[in-house]
Amino acid sequence: NSSLKIFSLEGNQPLAQEVANLVGIPLGKSTVKRFADGEVQINIEESIRGCDVFIIQPTSNPVNEHLMELLIMIDACKRASAANINIVMPYYGYARQDRKARSREPITAKLVANIIEKAGASRMIALDLHAPQIQGFFDIPIDHLMGVPILSNYFLEKGLDPESTVVVSPDHGGVTRARKMADRLKTPIAIIDKRRPKPNVAEVMNIVGDIDGKTAIIIDDIIDTAGTITLAADALVKKGAKEVYACCTHPVLSGPAKERIESSQIKELVVTNSIQLPEDRKPANVKELSVAELLAQAIVRVYEQESVSVLFD
Amino acid sequence: NSSLKIFSLEGNQPLAQEVANLVGIPLGKSTVKRFADGEVQINIEESIRGCDVFIIQPTSNPVNEHLMELLIMIDACKRASAANINIVMPYYGYARQDRKARSREPITAKLVANIIEKAGASRMIALDLHAPQIQGFFDIPIDHLMGVPILSNYFLEKGLDPESTVVVSPDHGGVTRARKMADRLKTPIAIIDKRRPKPNVAEVMNIVGDIDGKTAIIIDDIIDTAGTITLAADALVKKGAKEVYACCTHPVLSGPAKERIESSQIKELVVTNSIQLPEDRKPANVKELSVAELLAQAIVRVYEQESVSVLFD
Ligand SMILES: Nc1ncnc2c1ncn2[C@@H]1O[C@H](COP(=O)(O)O)[C@@H](O)[C@H]1O
Ligand SMILES: Nc1ncnc2c1ncn2[C@@H]1O[C@H](COP(=O)(O)O)[C@@H](O)[C@H]1O
Repeated sequence: NSSLKIFSLEGNQPLAQEVANLVGIPLGKSTVKRFADGEVQINIEESIRGCDVFIIQPTSNPVNEHLMELLIMIDACKRASAANINIVMPYYGYARQDRKARSREPITAKLVANIIEKAGASRMIALDLHAPQIQGFFDIPIDHLMGVPILSNYFLEKGLDPESTVVVSPDHGGVTRARKMADRLKTPIAIIDKRRPKPNVAEVMNIVGDIDGKTAIIIDDIIDTAGTITLAADALVKKGAKEVYACCTHPVLSGPAKERIESSQIKELVVTNSIQLPEDRKPANVKELSVAELLAQAIVRVYEQESVSVLFD
Repeated sequence: NSSLKIFSLEGNQPLAQEVANLVGIPLGKSTVKRFADGEVQINIEESIRGCDVFIIQPTSNPVNEHLMELLIMIDACKRASAANINIVMPYYGYARQDRKARSREPITAKLVANIIEKAGASRMIALDLHAPQIQGFFDIPIDHLMGVPILSNYFLEKGLDPESTVVVSPDHGGVTRARKMADRLKTPIAIIDKRRPKPNVAEVMNIVGDIDGKTAIIIDDIIDTAGTITLAADALVKKGAKEVYACCTHPVLSGPAKERIESSQIKELVVTNSIQLPEDRKPANVKELSVAELLAQAIVRVYEQESVSVLFD
């Protein structure tokens, strides 16, 4: 077997270090710098000839910097004769631009897949893609890991009573994810059913399902500006929920998110470290869970040529 | 003939507007914005079905933003059924990373070519590529325009005496460019011949050619931090040049460049507007020449399916 090397770019170095520790090897030696004019300069400081290389890089904000770092690193690995170039992308930037919703829109999630492949990636490990169809944007093998088990375990450990708990999907698109979590917690589900009665009239938040007197756990894949989730929490409390938790795999938390979450009805926001949150964007009531163990297992299984699907649930 | 549309992204809107004015059509309606998380959002606000689209975008600093804007715009144009997607790239970012100078380096200039093609570009118009070999990084047709005629005309109009003028290449790599300018000005050339006598000893700047009592015009393709060019000007004055001009096609002018140039022996720095210089990075003694006429002619000739090579000298 060729040797295993794990490299980190600038997307999430603490997570990459945690993964390397769990795998039991040091992170590969490389540096990512900028030339005076802002161009990315990457140096790989050890031989990777014939190696199975894993590059850990979520393409979180600043997405274009992180994506170009990744492409340039892939190019460098390819030219340095790596045997396999595996991309570990805990957060897939541009995933929401996954279809033409209006005329003349780009499908940037597909563009990203195309250019990662063109750069020379041999395989991809992703986590909770905004749409599972993004797997089909790739012609190389892709393993699609899930955040639901990690988030569910946290709530299971809280010892919530399944009888008085309900998992809530904040929109129609997220019902499958809510169902998966509810199966683990052995609770029912509810759905926030947004409807605009007339054009230019505020949306009405209907709740489908029984939440009265219950602990509600809203689950989403991405929380960005936190508008949807905080309004959902308001609606749940107004309609009789006892308390509201929110959770997601990817805490993008842009702009007003921190303030909105802190001043919302959300008791605790549970997220993973797929995205590295700078301290000044972390809400006071956030709980971060690590995906390092999951990624480390996936890396070892890919390296050992064992099935990764055992990790899927 | 299908209709001609010219779009600008954020790289150099004043130049794009000038080009559109010269071609005699309005710039295509499009907007480039950022989502809250920093992802690029592009809207094309008019039909381009079956059109010959030209996208004007130098990939200057911030290079990764400008490059991703370009790729996403190409993707949007492709999906909006443009007949041809022509890229007009007055400055090609990452051009200096055009070979492996050390082990395990990327060749980012080739990566950029690959991903532009993969995104769906049909043709490329470039200006003074750092190495002409970058043309060969593309499989699509590429027209390679030159800044030398524009820079030369400016000095011709100054009415300098060819007998007492010399064109200087700041290094061995630039001699061909200096020769081209000297042919137009009907002057001889000189070369700055840098040599490091021993490792860890400062470089010695030798001058090959006669500069004594002459007006020296240093020509380069890119001036970045301006270290090389200002040291060259010092050496020329020290060795007897009467006065020193410097010129280049691409004024990258990073970091200390403005200050260095202003406090140097350079009387005037002559550049083109291939890169849009913010006011606070413009040296007081800079003269900007426009490449708009050249680009407009190239666009019209490509559109009319006429030869572009007549513009090459
Ligand atoms: N970075 C982004 N931030 C906010 N909205 C986005 C972003 N990228 C794409 N979108 C839009 O979000 C919509 C997709 O959201 P969804 O319905 O949750 O899949 C599309 O209409 C996109 O135009
Ligand atoms: N953006 C940049 N700024 C400064 N140096 C660079 C940049 N990109 C590449 N280089 C280096 O510049 C060298 C090429 O310069 P040249 O000899 O002028 O072709 C290569 O060794 C590159 O590693």
